[in-house]
Amino acid sequence: MNYQALLDEIYTEVQPLFGQGHVADYIPELAKIDGRKFGIALETVEGECFKIGDATERFSIQSISKVFNLALGIRIVGDQVWERVGVEPSGNPFNSLVQLEYEKGIPRNPFINAGALVITDILLDHLDHPNEEMLAFVEKLRCLDINYNEEVAQSEIQTGYTNLALANFMKAYQNINHGVEQVLDAYSHQCSIEMSCVGLAKSFLFLANGGIVPKTGERIITAIQAKRINAIMLTCGFYDEAGAFAYLVGLPGKSGVGGGIVAVIPKKLAIAVWSPELNERGNSIRGIRALELFATRTGMSVF
Amino acid sequence: MNYQALLDEIYTEVQPLFGQGHVADYIPELAKIDGRKFGIALETVEGECFKIGDATERFSIQSISKVFNLALGIRIVGDQVWERVGVEPSGNPFNSLVQLEYEKGIPRNPFINAGALVITDILLDHLDHPNEEMLAFVEKLRCLDINYNEEVAQSEIQTGYTNLALANFMKAYQNINHGVEQVLDAYSHQCSIEMSCVGLAKSFLFLANGGIVPKTGERIITAIQAKRINAIMLTCGFYDEAGAFAYLVGLPGKSGVGGGIVAVIPKKLAIAVWSPELNERGNSIRGIRALELFATRTGMSVF
Amino acid sequence: MNYQALLDEIYTEVQPLFGQGHVADYIPELAKIDGRKFGIALETVEGECFKIGDATERFSIQSISKVFNLALGIRIVGDQVWERVGVEPSGNPFNSLVQLEYEKGIPRNPFINAGALVITDILLDHLDHPNEEMLAFVEKLRCLDINYNEEVAQSEIQTGYTNLALANFMKAYQNINHGVEQVLDAYSHQCSIEMSCVGLAKSFLFLANGGIVPKTGERIITAIQAKRINAIMLTCGFYDEAGAFAYLVGLPGKSGVGGGIVAVIPKKLAIAVWSPELNERGNSIRGIRALELFATRTGMSVF
Amino acid sequence: MNYQALLDEIYTEVQPLFGQGHVADYIPELAKIDGRKFGIALETVEGECFKIGDATERFSIQSISKVFNLALGIRIVGDQVWERVGVEPSGNPFNSLVQLEYEKGIPRNPFINAGALVITDILLDHLDHPNEEMLAFVEKLRCLDINYNEEVAQSEIQTGYTNLALANFMKAYQNINHGVEQVLDAYSHQCSIEMSCVGLAKSFLFLANGGIVPKTGERIITAIQAKRINAIMLTCGFYDEAGAFAYLVGLPGKSGVGGGIVAVIPKKLAIAVWSPELNERGNSIRGIRALELFATRTGMSVF
Repeated sequence: MNYQALLDEIYTEVQPLFGQGHVADYIPELAKIDGRKFGIALETVEGECFKIGDATERFSIQSISKVFNLALGIRIVGDQVWERVGVEPSGNPFNSLVQLEYEKGIPRNPFINAGALVITDILLDHLDHPNEEMLAFVEKLRCLDINYNEEVAQSEIQTGYTNLALANFMKAYQNINHGVEQVLDAYSHQCSIEMSCVGLAKSFLFLANGGIVPKTGERIITAIQAKRINAIMLTCGFYDEAGAFAYLVGLPGKSGVGGGIVAVIPKKLAIAVWSPELNERGNSIRGIRALELFATRTGMSVF
Repeated sequence: MNYQALLDEIYTEVQPLFGQGHVADYIPELAKIDGRKFGIALETVEGECFKIGDATERFSIQSISKVFNLALGIRIVGDQVWERVGVEPSGNPFNSLVQLEYEKGIPRNPFINAGALVITDILLDHLDHPNEEMLAFVEKLRCLDINYNEEVAQSEIQTGYTNLALANFMKAYQNINHGVEQVLDAYSHQCSIEMSCVGLAKSFLFLANGGIVPKTGERIITAIQAKRINAIMLTCGFYDEAGAFAYLVGLPGKSGVGGGIVAVIPKKLAIAVWSPELNERGNSIRGIRALELFATRTGMSVF
Repeated sequence: MNYQALLDEIYTEVQPLFGQGHVADYIPELAKIDGRKFGIALETVEGECFKIGDATERFSIQSISKVFNLALGIRIVGDQVWERVGVEPSGNPFNSLVQLEYEKGIPRNPFINAGALVITDILLDHLDHPNEEMLAFVEKLRCLDINYNEEVAQSEIQTGYTNLALANFMKAYQNINHGVEQVLDAYSHQCSIEMSCVGLAKSFLFLANGGIVPKTGERIITAIQAKRINAIMLTCGFYDEAGAFAYLVGLPGKSGVGGGIVAVIPKKLAIAVWSPELNERGNSIRGIRALELFATRTGMSVF
Repeated sequence: MNYQALLDEIYTEVQPLFGQGHVADYIPELAKIDGRKFGIALETVEGECFKIGDATERFSIQSISKVFNLALGIRIVGDQVWERVGVEPSGNPFNSLVQLEYEKGIPRNPFINAGALVITDILLDHLDHPNEEMLAFVEKLRCLDINYNEEVAQSEIQTGYTNLALANFMKAYQNINHGVEQVLDAYSHQCSIEMSCVGLAKSFLFLANGGIVPKTGERIITAIQAKRINAIMLTCGFYDEAGAFAYLVGLPGKSGVGGGIVAVIPKKLAIAVWSPELNERGNSIRGIRALELFATRTGMSVF
């Protein structure tokens, strides 16, 4: 398949959707981003790389980091993570406290904020320098153009009252063990990671490759663990829009309010899109459309 | 792959799980079923058929009929069904009125009762003899060993107060147009359909085959519509356990409280399992385990 | 106290609030009512009567009938009513199914629709001609200008899908025993009762008089039962605005979407107001204001 | 009326209920209290005082302090408090986050934890030494036997994760302005106040007396403000049991998990009961029964 021609085609076709959404503005650093930015990168397990647009410009990956968070948690403690977080779609907006209350402090899945905070709390049991070690982990996935945006991290910490509420609430249910400030610091740094589409596509490739980084041959997690992260991305990766993404695109993926989306085609490739304008459910408008076109034109959905 | 040897192996391995659940008892006809029953059937798109145990005995397919209901609805009115029902997981037990109230009478997806009632209401716009035409539709899918169990249907109608509540509630939101008794009659007959594992595997094969019945070459729905039904089965096919099924098994599928489960491997096969003992979430215990083993041993998940 | 002068004063003072709300329009018969209508009637336990404006014109009492319904239920079966309905405020809009689902089919109180349907179901165990006997009961309370509006009743029955949903839902929990149509018929007729402010004030006087109709000396219910109905009116009589009414007015009372409100001052009097324009919570705007002024000027609250 | 004889009678009659509930144990200091403790004190607006049992022993007033909190808030900023907190019953357990989420960070009333935290936040705008000034305020109400239990306060602070969650959550909605630790410190100290039944009865007397402390003649709040606090106590003073208390007792009152209850009979008296064993809704079992008997025997309910 001529991926480059397809990316070119999609790029052109999706451009007119600009102007229909809004850039995330809950922290000033995100509100400053130019909504016109748009890039796509595709990396195959064989090592080919295709890209178009702003594919090498780094942006705030935000909730996409929840996949790294989960992968590192599983790498360290394995299936024990599931004693403290579920695998069911939430059926509610991403920071909802309601479900958490009905379910006694056990978050529905690791891709809502509450779940990611619990995974972060688990990591803190095992990492002496969580921020440094998280960067090192992503670098091990062969993404080398990566950094924290300290301003973004500090903004998230300063305004993270809902996350503090979630963490304290779970602490009341004994599902957060470390200090909430410590958990929020690590969590907010993860969200502030900046990567490019190319970097994201590279770093997700192990999930398309049975848990092994193709370039280095290093096993990050087992094949079945990789399969399961893909399953959770498919059912829970897009907040309250996971069903629609599965329906339209049919690929495991994860979005962030920075406008990024990464999707995985098992055994084949990873593809990352960036376009900051979001729909009302917090997902990138042009990003979803680009991936829908990609899946339709290639016939490459998991279904 | 030697499917027969694998089915034999799974059959033996799963037997010891008998006794851990309970047979559905909300209507007397289901409570009478012998919990020891257990069968598996597998049908490939090439026309091979493998089976073991009680694979040719007919049982009440119950909510598995929601897939036929949806497929027929889409076949008749296409994407218009999505104006009246969503595609998101429900995050709540299968007959919950709560979400319906918050979302103004639009059911979250076509595989919860409320959603299936809406699809049935749509069918009533187009079918003069809905019960006969539904049977004819399933027969067209090459399942010929099929019938309504009129006693089950009447029990469902007599005790279907929750479904009447759902239907009336949606009628208050103008999302049910026909008389609620008429809708409930058609819906309850669908649930009362009796099929065997072999019949179910055959009749789901068009979803593994891009919308075409392999044996006859007849197109039932478009390839993209088939893909989308698969996506909805994966995200919504197991009530409040869809995430766990995706996680453990990783296949699109649909369960019923009669103890049946059908799963689809796109481009390859359909597999049906029957074992009446259910877990507390209403899904067949040995059925889920059998499919988990099948996916793990064959490596055939969509992820 | 010069009640007549006070009513005159309040009448004048409240007039300018006209135009701020909307007349109930969920059935055509109510939508036709002139929003300018406004009357007040006050009846003391000593038998004095004061009135102003449209105080002798009959209107649809709607949910005010829930008080007659409860009083008759208690008169017939006593405290057994509390086995099937609670006494707690609902904290949710008046026809909410949510709380009913969480609380297993037991309505929170007898003044939400679900609760009134249960009380009506209880009445059906004991009344051969429920509609006739309800009218006779209200006439016994010394309101003689009373009738059903059959058009309103039929409209309520025709469009009562939410009530059918509630009744069916409670039937699923075995908290409705009679046929839902039969329950809805009796319930809808109660709602369609037409009375004037004068009639309402007279007929509520037994609640200000320890359960005895002052004029005839007939005991309707015990003193403690009368006290308890007053308590439930205070905590639950105004849908989601009960707290605000207690705060502003401080009297036990009950409102209806026809624009009527009746309030009781224990040991002293009953006062009824009618003004069809409602606020967004379904309570009469000028009615609430008139009662607030009455309570403030007379110093007559229960607090 | 011979109040002393009545208290003696009630004291004897209620004793056998010992052993049916459990002492609050969420902090160790409360769990240590002897469940057999039982006292009643009654203070009339004329200055008479009656008591029996452990009526002069100080105990942790816990949520009863929310009335002092509200009274002081109203004294300082008047009706402005209602811009940030509602007056409706909550219909949910006392620390529920659900309603807070649906209602955008505005607590339903000042007697649930969230509401009391908001009132405390308001106080912090005006008090330089909130802890000292709160004690001084209660002393002004003529309760002189009063102190903080610093151990209880520190336990509440150490384990107050749910309150921290509530405060942070409301901060996300801009309904908490001060630091959450500062708010929690003041709030927890209020809860830790220790008073006797005699002290509580004295200090609530201004609510029975139109806002004026009878002994000193000092006006604390206006008559209408006192009336309104009584109204809110009646509709919201007993967590999820306010309706039942209004139904059984029919008096404005407030309970605390320390086992205390204070009730007010407007224009007449205040009565305080202490008995640490609680029912499953967190209210004193013997306390509620004692007040029910008091209301029934004296005929003194507001209804």
